[in-house]
Amino acid sequence: MNGADQLISSLRAGGVDTVFANPGTSEMHFVAGLDRYSDVRGILCLFEGVATGAADGYARMTGRPAATLLHLGPGLGNGWANLHNARRAHVPLINVVGDHATYHAHFDAPLQSDVVALAHTVSALVENPRSPGEIADAVQRAIDTATGRPGAIATIILPADASWGEIDALRTSPAPTRRATPVDEASLVHARRVLREPGTCVFVGGEALSAAGLSAAHRLARGGVRVLSETFPTRQAGGATHFTPERLIYLSEFAQAQLADVTTMIVVGGRVPVGFFAYPDVASELLPAGCDVISLADDTHDAVDILHDLADGFAAGPMESTSPARPSGDLTTFTLAQAVASTLPEGAIIADESNTGGIHLYGQLAHSAPHDLLTLTGGSIGFGLPVALGAAIGGGGRRVLSLESDGSMMYTPQALWSMAREGCDVTVVGLSNRSYGILNLERQRVGAVDGGSTSQRMLDLDNPALRLAEVARGMGVPARTVQSADELVTALHESYQTSGPTFIEAMLPKGLS
Amino acid sequence: MNGADQLISSLRAGGVDTVFANPGTSEMHFVAGLDRYSDVRGILCLFEGVATGAADGYARMTGRPAATLLHLGPGLGNGWANLHNARRAHVPLINVVGDHATYHAHFDAPLQSDVVALAHTVSALVENPRSPGEIADAVQRAIDTATGRPGAIATIILPADASWGEIDALRTSPAPTRRATPVDEASLVHARRVLREPGTCVFVGGEALSAAGLSAAHRLARGGVRVLSETFPTRQAGGATHFTPERLIYLSEFAQAQLADVTTMIVVGGRVPVGFFAYPDVASELLPAGCDVISLADDTHDAVDILHDLADGFAAGPMESTSPARPSGDLTTFTLAQAVASTLPEGAIIADESNTGGIHLYGQLAHSAPHDLLTLTGGSIGFGLPVALGAAIGGGGRRVLSLESDGSMMYTPQALWSMAREGCDVTVVGLSNRSYGILNLERQRVGAVDGGSTSQRMLDLDNPALRLAEVARGMGVPARTVQSADELVTALHESYQTSGPTFIEAMLPKGLS
Repeated sequence: MNGADQLISSLRAGGVDTVFANPGTSEMHFVAGLDRYSDVRGILCLFEGVATGAADGYARMTGRPAATLLHLGPGLGNGWANLHNARRAHVPLINVVGDHATYHAHFDAPLQSDVVALAHTVSALVENPRSPGEIADAVQRAIDTATGRPGAIATIILPADASWGEIDALRTSPAPTRRATPVDEASLVHARRVLREPGTCVFVGGEALSAAGLSAAHRLARGGVRVLSETFPTRQAGGATHFTPERLIYLSEFAQAQLADVTTMIVVGGRVPVGFFAYPDVASELLPAGCDVISLADDTHDAVDILHDLADGFAAGPMESTSPARPSGDLTTFTLAQAVASTLPEGAIIADESNTGGIHLYGQLAHSAPHDLLTLTGGSIGFGLPVALGAAIGGGGRRVLSLESDGSMMYTPQALWSMAREGCDVTVVGLSNRSYGILNLERQRVGAVDGGSTSQRMLDLDNPALRLAEVARGMGVPARTVQSADELVTALHESYQTSGPTFIEAMLPKGLS
Repeated sequence: MNGADQLISSLRAGGVDTVFANPGTSEMHFVAGLDRYSDVRGILCLFEGVATGAADGYARMTGRPAATLLHLGPGLGNGWANLHNARRAHVPLINVVGDHATYHAHFDAPLQSDVVALAHTVSALVENPRSPGEIADAVQRAIDTATGRPGAIATIILPADASWGEIDALRTSPAPTRRATPVDEASLVHARRVLREPGTCVFVGGEALSAAGLSAAHRLARGGVRVLSETFPTRQAGGATHFTPERLIYLSEFAQAQLADVTTMIVVGGRVPVGFFAYPDVASELLPAGCDVISLADDTHDAVDILHDLADGFAAGPMESTSPARPSGDLTTFTLAQAVASTLPEGAIIADESNTGGIHLYGQLAHSAPHDLLTLTGGSIGFGLPVALGAAIGGGGRRVLSLESDGSMMYTPQALWSMAREGCDVTVVGLSNRSYGILNLERQRVGAVDGGSTSQRMLDLDNPALRLAEVARGMGVPARTVQSADELVTALHESYQTSGPTFIEAMLPKGLS
């Protein structure tokens, strides 16, 4: 028995049974150890950003941490961007990063780097056990941190000799408990008092966007309270049977207009909204000056309970919804959204990285079959395909729909291979507009409007055209290309009848549309 | 005129005229600024690891830094692994990382992270100018650091408001000079005294592996001195017209056997070799106990001059070489190496990430046309295609041959698209063995030999088979698949006659071979 056994066994005891792995030499004892734990599932990823993004998606669907298995500093570096998104999603996640043997570090071998410093830049907790005997406690602290409130990233840096070092017996650790900060009663009283005033709005985010949270939000809305929701939720219940709040607009100027009449914002389960970026002559604050903010629940609270407390005395009622229209004709961002909404199977999980191509999606999904929506919480593109992979693994057999714009898809396309390997029921729609659409917009917004040919060339994705369907086929995923709304509807229908992943390349007009 | 103008102008004055870019909103003023500097070339990369690896390859061929343009913490994170390789290659490189406006940081917007701490983990110098007026000096220090001896990575973190802030006039900076540490004369005398003793070897690395350095090494070898070279050089002149030293073996046990009789090692232009990884019951040191080490030149010295000093009194002579054999029949790692060596065009640049598939390459290339060999200096796979891209941009029209194993290729395949876009004359050979060959080997070496089905599945790349040629086509690169040595010879010949990139998928036997 060795340190790797202790690590896997302690993770298992803490509820971790899934490992998204891209191992190297320093992780070979961990990999070999997997053979001795048949109830721990190892999923090979071809790139570490796939592993970290998949662990994020898994946690969003299960509420439990998966482990990643990464190879030294470069492995953690490759996984960093999707860890950033996971950090912003407040999901539980445990990284296991193999490192050189303790006595080997001072030789400064080619793969040596300051893994601990690197890990601190993206982790709430960094553990670095130096011997097999230190592993059990390190894992315990990691699980406590990861599964606390809010969920967080804990990174265990495991020297190779701690992994291969022998131990006499495995130590077990108690299961952690998840504690919530109680609501501040004075704030709750204050919130109730101003709730029906005309300038008051309730801003919901985090766990308040679950089905249970949204049922309370619906009662508030029925009672005349304005309810707004955060722009990029970790997970939001959607579809015709759920209440769909008014979503805060991404662009600062529009969000400021949207919030211009707000005099009091009651925040439940999220954070006071701020501008995604700064822009010349545009304030970073989105709320009007003098607006009162009552923070009832952040990510340390039980936002669902608190939202129900707030809605106490508001009556429930039926959801009203129209059926989504089935589109035909040209494929545009609007008909694409209609196609998605009108064909969506019940209980689907949508991993949305459609960006500018998905501008009409939220509105159309309000009429669709019930689903969960996962969005880009940290702004680092390349999250969509990996999160779809993880959501499929953790989704209990639910269909996953991955909406992926071409620019974003090219960051982590390797996730497609793992979907094929694991037989995941994922429908990927690759939105081809041959452009960094969002950047063409942002270039104008920051006032950098010269628009010369050099800069334009930095934002276009044609020449050569990316053939997304071929990329997908190269990774072992059956793929087709659709040119019209009707073809997209047909392709979506067929994919939902087919086991395993399917890739649909949807040809949208070039650029912003 | 704004801070972006100052930045581009200062970079230009410091000899930087090439930018490998993956920009986002915070970099839009820099992108727009490129329109005003027609002698600065911007090259769009679809993923930041492509940009950083390309800057590495560019520096290896030109000796000058390129700039990268990266988007906040996640952009730097995605570029981290190839920056690690570049750091180990001691190449000059300047990162420009856009950041939120200074006043926006405290809002902790979704993309906020500790970019400075992240940059320190992989940079020799981190600059963070807070206003347009601080940019000129920051760039000056960055260029001084990057182009010093050894070459190094300098990272400039540029807040958006420093980029868009107005300035009255551009400041200019003096051009840096490159200084070398002088040789320690006593060590040189000592080295000369023991040079002809039977247990002495000269270990060459770094710039000593240039054509000029190898001509001195050849004189030593002709005089009976044993000359060994580092395993993973930044750049090594090769082919029949250059001296090919005995390469230090990658595997520690074999390297220890190779060095067993060495009593004195004279190091010129590299570092004392150490084990790449630690293994149970294998020492990290490769030299025998009691071996004397004379370090004549590290990366701060002019290793070429010092090697010539050392070889003073040794006579030059003609190179002896046989012509490389042209293979036929099955495609194996051996016939692949023969095919490469026998068809190589004169002056080619080889970016080698063939790993286990390239085991016979070094031996065969000793007989080939003259070329430069670029290898994986930092052990972080995914370097090959990006370095090939950068070498093509900086190579002055020389053909680039990129030898890329399937596992490694899947880390940064997006480089193929930039090759097509820029019309780079790159021949990529994708070595398909459907396996992490090196890990199958390493798993046995670390003693993790259980070899159960779960662990085996973590090391195999079949199911589904990667179709490398389709991945390449999806990125706009013409591609074909070859099954035999003869087909490979033909495909290589044809690719060398064709402008722009070509992809050749070479089907090797599965696993180690």
